[in-house]
Amino acid sequence: MAVTYELVKRCSKTGARAGRLHTPHGTFDTPIFMPVGTQASVKAMSPEELIGMGADIILSNTYHLFLRPGHELVAEAGGLHSFMNWKRGILTDSGGFQVFSLGPLRKITEEGVTFRSHIDGSKQFLSPEKATEVQMALGADIIMAFDECVPYPADYDYAKASTDRTTRWAERCLAAHNRKDQALFGIVQGGMYKDLRTRSAQELVSLGFPGYAIGGLSVGEPKPLMYEMLEHTVPQLPEGKARYLMGVGTPDCLVEGVMHGVDMFDCVFPTRVARNGTVMTNKGRLVIKNAEYARDLNPIDEECGCYACQNFSRAYIRHLFKAEEIFGLRLATIHNLYFLLSFMKKMRQAILEDNFLAFRDEFWAGWERR
Amino acid sequence: MAVTYELVKRCSKTGARAGRLHTPHGTFDTPIFMPVGTQASVKAMSPEELIGMGADIILSNTYHLFLRPGHELVAEAGGLHSFMNWKRGILTDSGGFQVFSLGPLRKITEEGVTFRSHIDGSKQFLSPEKATEVQMALGADIIMAFDECVPYPADYDYAKASTDRTTRWAERCLAAHNRKDQALFGIVQGGMYKDLRTRSAQELVSLGFPGYAIGGLSVGEPKPLMYEMLEHTVPQLPEGKARYLMGVGTPDCLVEGVMHGVDMFDCVFPTRVARNGTVMTNKGRLVIKNAEYARDLNPIDEECGCYACQNFSRAYIRHLFKAEEIFGLRLATIHNLYFLLSFMKKMRQAILEDNFLAFRDEFWAGWERR
Repeated sequence: MAVTYELVKRCSKTGARAGRLHTPHGTFDTPIFMPVGTQASVKAMSPEELIGMGADIILSNTYHLFLRPGHELVAEAGGLHSFMNWKRGILTDSGGFQVFSLGPLRKITEEGVTFRSHIDGSKQFLSPEKATEVQMALGADIIMAFDECVPYPADYDYAKASTDRTTRWAERCLAAHNRKDQALFGIVQGGMYKDLRTRSAQELVSLGFPGYAIGGLSVGEPKPLMYEMLEHTVPQLPEGKARYLMGVGTPDCLVEGVMHGVDMFDCVFPTRVARNGTVMTNKGRLVIKNAEYARDLNPIDEECGCYACQNFSRAYIRHLFKAEEIFGLRLATIHNLYFLLSFMKKMRQAILEDNFLAFRDEFWAGWERR
Repeated sequence: MAVTYELVKRCSKTGARAGRLHTPHGTFDTPIFMPVGTQASVKAMSPEELIGMGADIILSNTYHLFLRPGHELVAEAGGLHSFMNWKRGILTDSGGFQVFSLGPLRKITEEGVTFRSHIDGSKQFLSPEKATEVQMALGADIIMAFDECVPYPADYDYAKASTDRTTRWAERCLAAHNRKDQALFGIVQGGMYKDLRTRSAQELVSLGFPGYAIGGLSVGEPKPLMYEMLEHTVPQLPEGKARYLMGVGTPDCLVEGVMHGVDMFDCVFPTRVARNGTVMTNKGRLVIKNAEYARDLNPIDEECGCYACQNFSRAYIRHLFKAEEIFGLRLATIHNLYFLLSFMKKMRQAILEDNFLAFRDEFWAGWERR
């Protein structure tokens, strides 16, 4: 197997675990957060900046790269790593989520999904086979099965039919996949129905993937419901394989995800809010454009070791945002990603010291005081 | 004198000269190009990137910083170097050019200029004393006298009256300036009239500035006329002082400026066109968004040693521009600035080898073949 998960330490009181993910582009500590580089670029960042903040594996997107610049070009360039000059790990999402998000612009059949490109309106088609072919051409270390992310809310019959189709599609992805140097992960669906989650997990596990994602969460449901689904689903996945919670990246959900035994996360949250001038600190979020920071010569976060906090003041970064200077959103992005990546490292350390529950209690005490 | 010019080598056939500019933030080789950081940021660049491409001194703007974030805040932060974390040289323009560009939004009297802010419409006032006070607060290594940039075309009487006022204002700037650790440069005006240029140069030189700028060129006049004015004006400036041609930054004008004995240049050109996807090469400009580069896996310029050319292909950079990814304009900006800064270094080397005229001939042969 090109990509394997190694369990290093289990929390004695919760499902949390510390591990290592071995890939063709390096071995990475888990739990891990993957910055999102949808279009073969983590927005506003250079590869060196990502490495400087401790990023190990980033996520890119099949739907976007299939439409532009096209997977053939990326393959010609030697694959995504070479195209974007990123030497560490890459995971590509299958495009399922994006295609289904197109709403009236797409049509689903058992064969696949016909849709109109958001770029030029052209008619396009993705299926389990095609999404796998595209991802083999892109050449990420980890690729994802082509699934339907069950929307929220969804009635039981819709969720059941969709989840069953996702399982059939997962089988077709496996059959289409033939690159030994990349791992194809299955995606557990099932909406907010525990029996469907169980069925999805069991069927995918029986297909034997090298890793499993939990999809269809963080799609608008209340957070306690998401946590309940996690608590129910994760234990049904094999201990020896990596578990990836898709689209999750706020500190509260990361803590709960880790507690329930998730190893991998991704989310546009830290980079997206950064570009709007919102930065994360241990004392809560801070809207850097606000007038209260106009003369504030302190760094965003005094405890932070990131490039932005080591070199620039809140007043300067606020000025850059007010003046619409690109360097402002670069600094905010660096800070937010560094903050989340450091947060993951702290959780891992707590697990290694078998201290995770105390870490979590302390986190929630601070989170709720805000 | 805090800032001094040291003549290192004179070209035996032209006015070109190689020198060194000594400032409180370092000694810099001339001729030199200064990247523009109007609002305390060279657009899209970090200080480390600027240093990596060989930038020694950058330009920032009094008008913009006076309005936002305000010179008092910058002074509180320890001055512009500290505020923007730039450890090498800074030159601030006086704001004269920007204020006069406001057209109907400004009113000129002998005392100064009343104008409306382009940001919030508020009524503002800049005078020789105020512009000098603001620049002392900003704390650049080199600051500029508050002048009127004579527009093109301008009739003789207007140009004469304006130039005489610029001289009176230059005297007031000198009287108001009292920071020993920064140099105040005078600005020669005179429009396109040689006798006015002579008069302006002589009067400013008699006031005894530590350096002289040539203003009011590259304002829409035909290039041969600009070169004629340079040929006429530069020889009237003292050999022992730095000469700065304001707002000039295309390769052809840089070559001619250097030939006529100019030491310093600035222009938004390389950074502005970069953000629109135009990159400079020895073989001419290249619009990276064009379809012809879609599958071009070569760097922007094979001879170039910049970060963009060492690490990324035309196809990738084109993709970033098409996908509106910020990293694309970062790469184009890095390339263009590196290109121009390297171009200056080559000219200096040619002067040191007393080979400048051959360098210029070769440059023009290539330029005209395009």
